[in-house]
Amino acid sequence: MTYCLGISIPAGLVIASDSRTNAGIDQIATVRKLALFEKPDTMMIAVASAGNFATTQSVVTILRQNLDTGLAGRDLFTIGTMFEVAQTVGAVLREVLARDAEFVRPFGDPGATFLVGGQIKGERTRLFQIYTAGNFVEATPRAPFLQIGETKYGKPILDRTIRDETTLGEAAKLALLSFDATIRSNLSVGPPIDMLCYVPDSFSTANLSKYTEGNPFWAGLRHSYGQGLLDVVHNLPEPPLANRDRPPRE
Amino acid sequence: MTYCLGISIPAGLVIASDSRTNAGIDQIATVRKLALFEKPDTMMIAVASAGNFATTQSVVTILRQNLDTGLAGRDLFTIGTMFEVAQTVGAVLREVLARDAEFVRPFGDPGATFLVGGQIKGERTRLFQIYTAGNFVEATPRAPFLQIGETKYGKPILDRTIRDETTLGEAAKLALLSFDATIRSNLSVGPPIDMLCYVPDSFSTANLSKYTEGNPFWAGLRHSYGQGLLDVVHNLPEPPLANRDRPPRE
Repeated sequence: MTYCLGISIPAGLVIASDSRTNAGIDQIATVRKLALFEKPDTMMIAVASAGNFATTQSVVTILRQNLDTGLAGRDLFTIGTMFEVAQTVGAVLREVLARDAEFVRPFGDPGATFLVGGQIKGERTRLFQIYTAGNFVEATPRAPFLQIGETKYGKPILDRTIRDETTLGEAAKLALLSFDATIRSNLSVGPPIDMLCYVPDSFSTANLSKYTEGNPFWAGLRHSYGQGLLDVVHNLPEPPLANRDRPPRE
Repeated sequence: MTYCLGISIPAGLVIASDSRTNAGIDQIATVRKLALFEKPDTMMIAVASAGNFATTQSVVTILRQNLDTGLAGRDLFTIGTMFEVAQTVGAVLREVLARDAEFVRPFGDPGATFLVGGQIKGERTRLFQIYTAGNFVEATPRAPFLQIGETKYGKPILDRTIRDETTLGEAAKLALLSFDATIRSNLSVGPPIDMLCYVPDSFSTANLSKYTEGNPFWAGLRHSYGQGLLDVVHNLPEPPLANRDRPPRE
């Protein structure tokens, strides 16, 4: 399994992925699931992927091979809108599945999903989720974060906290806490976490970080959050219990 | 969908369920999913159910019909251990599925799962999870809570907080917060929440509460927790960003 998260807020874009891949419990590996396409001063595109790793790796490889070829609707560097970038990722995914899906299906699910976020000069920062069918949805102010893979454990903290006025640093904190919740509750998602915090109009991947399990910042964040959460819970009132103090009848 | 939670700690037992059932989006109803079997001074058994509602309702009805019949291994009131109670629930589930499953399968999953918790005089408080296959597992000090149904959203807060020394009142708070996380993130789980807080050796269901959406205690708890969580997150350090303050290049 995998967990990838994208948060699109006015302050910028956070896009992050875990690094675990497995094909059965005896074959667990660490892979990079966050691909970056950067053209200085013009374009920054991040693609996070979940699902069948052969499929996602093929899609990303083809996207990379098509760079600087000038192929219309295929070379990301010649594309003018993030909407078209999402269409292109969906189209390449359909090509790969048309080639492989029928052969893979007897052995497992060939499907894959992607988060595609970034900015092309002339547009604002945008974030999309590409489905296995190759179609996609875009994040909006009312739905500012998108998730793929093992999404449920890490959703409640985001539902409670992500707002329009969330800063980029806060969104990065919340992303790391969302990953921590997922990793604690589910063995199939694992560090390191690759996380890009994109500053609008920077067209730069300078804020790309890798958080290993022992990363001191992440370890401190997890500890402080856990302690803070215990304190919050401890200070909440307890539900009224009718016979809490009732002595045992024996 | 459904969410049911059982927490078994030295201070007692919390067992809770939501009340939403649906068969397609146009047919949503509120039902009681927590059944109680109480024999004063001797026995208190709580059964929370998830899955196919026809199946779970049949199982609970048969368990209730068998009370006071003296049928060996069928009448819960004549059973001496919670382990045998779990076996009985599993056996009745297998009978219902043997009768119905084949006919139901063309229309949907006939399966069901149960949490069975309580105490029989002479034993400590115990908690079991019954699978659709009719087999079961018991909660232990290392795995003090069990969940069935839509389990993922409400798991992280429990993973972070439930300890051996958790009080019954704190466990009740945490159960309500776990339900709140699930309800916020998933439309198929809904209030009211039925929650029993069982005090060991009380053999009583006196601490059974129903939390409707507008329940002032629950609403206050949700609000205070959300605010407390935001404060915790706000006070955590932000990840170092290389170019957070970098001015746009434009």
